[in-house]
Amino acid sequence: MKYIVIGAVAGGMTAAMKIRRNDDKAEIIVYDKDTDISYSGCSLAYYISGVIDNRKSIVPRDSQYFKKFNVDVRTAHEVLKVDVQNKKVIVKDLNTGNTFENSFDKLIIATGAHPVIPQIDGIELEGIFVLRNVKDADRIKEFINTYFPKKALIVGGGYIGLEMAEALKVLGMDVCIVEKQENILPNLDSDMARLVESYLEQKGVRIKTSTSVLRFEGDKRVKRAILSDGSKVEADFVLLAVGVRPSTQFLEGSGIQLLPNGAIKVDEYMRTNIEGIFAAGDCAAVYFKLNGKTMYVPLGSTANKMGRIAGENATGGSMKFSGILATSIFKVFDLTVAQTGYTEKMAQQDGIEYDVGHITKPHITTAYPGSEKMTIKALAELSSRKIIGAQIVGTKGVDKRIDVLATAIWAGLTTDDLFQLDLAYAPPFSSAKDPVHYVGMVMSNFLDKRKFNCTQEKLLEKMQKGEDFVVLDVRTPEQYKIKHIKGAVNIPLEMLQNKMNLLPKDKQIIVYCNSGVSSNIAQNILQQNGFRKVYNLSGGISNVTLEQLLERSTSNSSPSSP
Amino acid sequence: MKYIVIGAVAGGMTAAMKIRRNDDKAEIIVYDKDTDISYSGCSLAYYISGVIDNRKSIVPRDSQYFKKFNVDVRTAHEVLKVDVQNKKVIVKDLNTGNTFENSFDKLIIATGAHPVIPQIDGIELEGIFVLRNVKDADRIKEFINTYFPKKALIVGGGYIGLEMAEALKVLGMDVCIVEKQENILPNLDSDMARLVESYLEQKGVRIKTSTSVLRFEGDKRVKRAILSDGSKVEADFVLLAVGVRPSTQFLEGSGIQLLPNGAIKVDEYMRTNIEGIFAAGDCAAVYFKLNGKTMYVPLGSTANKMGRIAGENATGGSMKFSGILATSIFKVFDLTVAQTGYTEKMAQQDGIEYDVGHITKPHITTAYPGSEKMTIKALAELSSRKIIGAQIVGTKGVDKRIDVLATAIWAGLTTDDLFQLDLAYAPPFSSAKDPVHYVGMVMSNFLDKRKFNCTQEKLLEKMQKGEDFVVLDVRTPEQYKIKHIKGAVNIPLEMLQNKMNLLPKDKQIIVYCNSGVSSNIAQNILQQNGFRKVYNLSGGISNVTLEQLLERSTSNSSPSSP
Repeated sequence: MKYIVIGAVAGGMTAAMKIRRNDDKAEIIVYDKDTDISYSGCSLAYYISGVIDNRKSIVPRDSQYFKKFNVDVRTAHEVLKVDVQNKKVIVKDLNTGNTFENSFDKLIIATGAHPVIPQIDGIELEGIFVLRNVKDADRIKEFINTYFPKKALIVGGGYIGLEMAEALKVLGMDVCIVEKQENILPNLDSDMARLVESYLEQKGVRIKTSTSVLRFEGDKRVKRAILSDGSKVEADFVLLAVGVRPSTQFLEGSGIQLLPNGAIKVDEYMRTNIEGIFAAGDCAAVYFKLNGKTMYVPLGSTANKMGRIAGENATGGSMKFSGILATSIFKVFDLTVAQTGYTEKMAQQDGIEYDVGHITKPHITTAYPGSEKMTIKALAELSSRKIIGAQIVGTKGVDKRIDVLATAIWAGLTTDDLFQLDLAYAPPFSSAKDPVHYVGMVMSNFLDKRKFNCTQEKLLEKMQKGEDFVVLDVRTPEQYKIKHIKGAVNIPLEMLQNKMNLLPKDKQIIVYCNSGVSSNIAQNILQQNGFRKVYNLSGGISNVTLEQLLERSTSNSSPSSP
Repeated sequence: MKYIVIGAVAGGMTAAMKIRRNDDKAEIIVYDKDTDISYSGCSLAYYISGVIDNRKSIVPRDSQYFKKFNVDVRTAHEVLKVDVQNKKVIVKDLNTGNTFENSFDKLIIATGAHPVIPQIDGIELEGIFVLRNVKDADRIKEFINTYFPKKALIVGGGYIGLEMAEALKVLGMDVCIVEKQENILPNLDSDMARLVESYLEQKGVRIKTSTSVLRFEGDKRVKRAILSDGSKVEADFVLLAVGVRPSTQFLEGSGIQLLPNGAIKVDEYMRTNIEGIFAAGDCAAVYFKLNGKTMYVPLGSTANKMGRIAGENATGGSMKFSGILATSIFKVFDLTVAQTGYTEKMAQQDGIEYDVGHITKPHITTAYPGSEKMTIKALAELSSRKIIGAQIVGTKGVDKRIDVLATAIWAGLTTDDLFQLDLAYAPPFSSAKDPVHYVGMVMSNFLDKRKFNCTQEKLLEKMQKGEDFVVLDVRTPEQYKIKHIKGAVNIPLEMLQNKMNLLPKDKQIIVYCNSGVSSNIAQNILQQNGFRKVYNLSGGISNVTLEQLLERSTSNSSPSSP
């Protein structure tokens, strides 16, 4: 049996190696137009910053390596066309310029994706880069080492843009990020994205949201960008990071079905519409596990799974891909940002009835040195009580919690189950009640309607609508003085029993503290004393990122008191 | 409603606070004979070593703190008796010596556990300690600061013994551990325990297994221990860490049912056999989630869950505890050791048919700096394909993988599911294929009987029985030379196709490499060429801890070749 694989990075090489393991006699040929193969695309920002100092670390393997397994990898070979009728590919040897054809019994397409390049004036100037493969990184490193740029502009506030913001800062540049959407990280909910924005601003990264680049100016090399808000940004280095498209142009007209975004349509067996032709990785569509809908989330981890499944099924297997949760994670400076499953945005699009909660908890017990808080935003479905989504922003231990939550969501666990999980506790690693347990406890309370919850967005809406409600701050007067919600009254928790008669029983009360522990108790006290419409501000004031809601200390302000 | 809680640490205070949250009007009295309450018992070794330098960090709360929540905590009050007929407790105020009684509507017993003290000669000598509560730690610190002991003996190689081995080493002592069982960490399987033993020995900790202390000798203060193997160990500091017993002696004859080990029998609602009386934490029994059998695994994380459930149900709720997976974790020097679910020992006791595999993988992608390998031993049930147990030894990222695996086991996921999990990948946090994915892939291969697996214990058994088999080393001759399995023949992987005719098709072949990747491929090649009884040595030679199996280099040894 003769197998051709197009693409020699994550999806392609995983498929090729799976074929080899399943079929010792198989003839396996892999074509890639690049000369770097099987590289770690996710490591490129770290290669540029110098955290990874060795090019060989991110491209550890060459064609020679795969010879050991009798897999014939031909680099600098571009597949120009797939002839599905005659089961052959037309290939151009980029070294010689010669074109030839080769036949296959089974074909696996794993050509990946390429960066979107906006068609605007000045885009061809020197000093404007994309970052997708190792040669892009080489070019960027060379430019930086030649011209020592001082002012970097990053177009696109996704995770590649942010990883590169860190890399360029580390290299000594001023960094400005321009993002077309209202917030950076448009795949996150905006409350969580704002946590990242304010962190980045503290780190000295300028962020311009709801803004796009109209044109670049310069003289051979880029000098500045003109933005849609009329402003100019001086920049002698530009990274375009506005997303990627599946590299499937060569398939147009081949008969292999593509989706509107260019992704190859595959079923759960990684089969295209053409018998014997499979696709895997960033060139192909994936499905969101929780609703079965097509999604395009090109990630190395998914490409590996798809490659293995394609290889298995190309050799006669029947392995199904169960779909993705769109789990992702990245580090920017000391912050980790991660998500899995539904965001509020996605849940609303799907018409799912959900409740949402925010918890801010230390990643390990506070008794142990180095404990740091993280904020988890969680979504649970009202009808099923299943946990369906989580987003986390924090400095330590975020990767653990997102993976535990991704596993729980994958398995269909409820918020009640989360509390019961037997997670590993010792002081260097967690708390006796892990943040994941708190997610379970808090969300179960909401779902039981023992507790009502109010997000900062809903609070702002209530304010803007002029609804009649009281905001109650149960922290100390000192804490209140530094920062509080606009118009909030201050009754410290320990005085609540005695002073609650000052509060109106018929009105909505929105109670908060720093991160939700004391306000949770205050909410109980009020509910048990006949206050019926008591809401807890989700995550407390430490989670409030809408500046419109906040009033900050002026030296002579004193707390208002009912 | 009047609630009495006995015990003011994890289980008791969690219960008390849950009662408060559920019932604003409740009268809640908590008795504890200690004056330190609500402390982090798991942090004591770190307090002794000085990693945690502040006593207040491990005892952050006092009675005063709980007044804020109208919970009346009376320290130095020992409950002597529970009168279940008249619903009252007999209490001794340890400050005054006065005894009084107090009635309750609902009672929660959370008295914890206390260390077992072996009744041997010399046990009363100064310098012999247990470590259970903060005062034990105070006493140990004071002794060390007064007498500057140089030679420590730790009796018991469980996790407290090992945490203290590190603490005492950090404080400059020579440390010897004596363990009665064949290996330290008797709750782990011995292959994994041996990995820890050899690490500790590298760190300069002496370990004597299958040995117990016959008596201590000294003159007022301890000077040495006489061991069952006839040897003497000089020791001017001794820690007894041979386990704990439920602190339930005061309940004998009360009518509250105790199990043979003294643990209070509770149902899944934390109810004792007496209406209105609940128990939680280390004084009570728990159930292993996977078989429903009683287990005694006293841990702070479990105590918190039990306390919350007891509090909920004492106030009219009906929350069930789903049981434990016996998940545990601890750090010793730079090593992390963790387990969850079934060990092989336990699975054999239960008569479960399982397969077992070992994988050794880096915790993050090797391209990124600081990548470190961990070894995971996993068990899967043959019939259901469920993952039922995992043990991990490694330096980094162990806590994440044990929690993901604990969640997967809790949810009843299969090994096939593990491969499909959408875990979060970025180079600082994991690999595109996470170690958990590898567990899934490797175990599914075993279960599919695509692959046969052979543990080092089984290999030793085959050798000892004189079975007819060939051990095949597919690494390089240089690697073979340094260390190989006794009697192994060496055919490097890339020469296997040409040289396999030298191997006997009718015999068992046990193939290995360093950690299982090349041997996996070799196994495929052999199987696909008609070799029917090809076994992969689980985890490769890097996982072999039975010295009897190994032959190490002598400068002039040359590989045997078939």
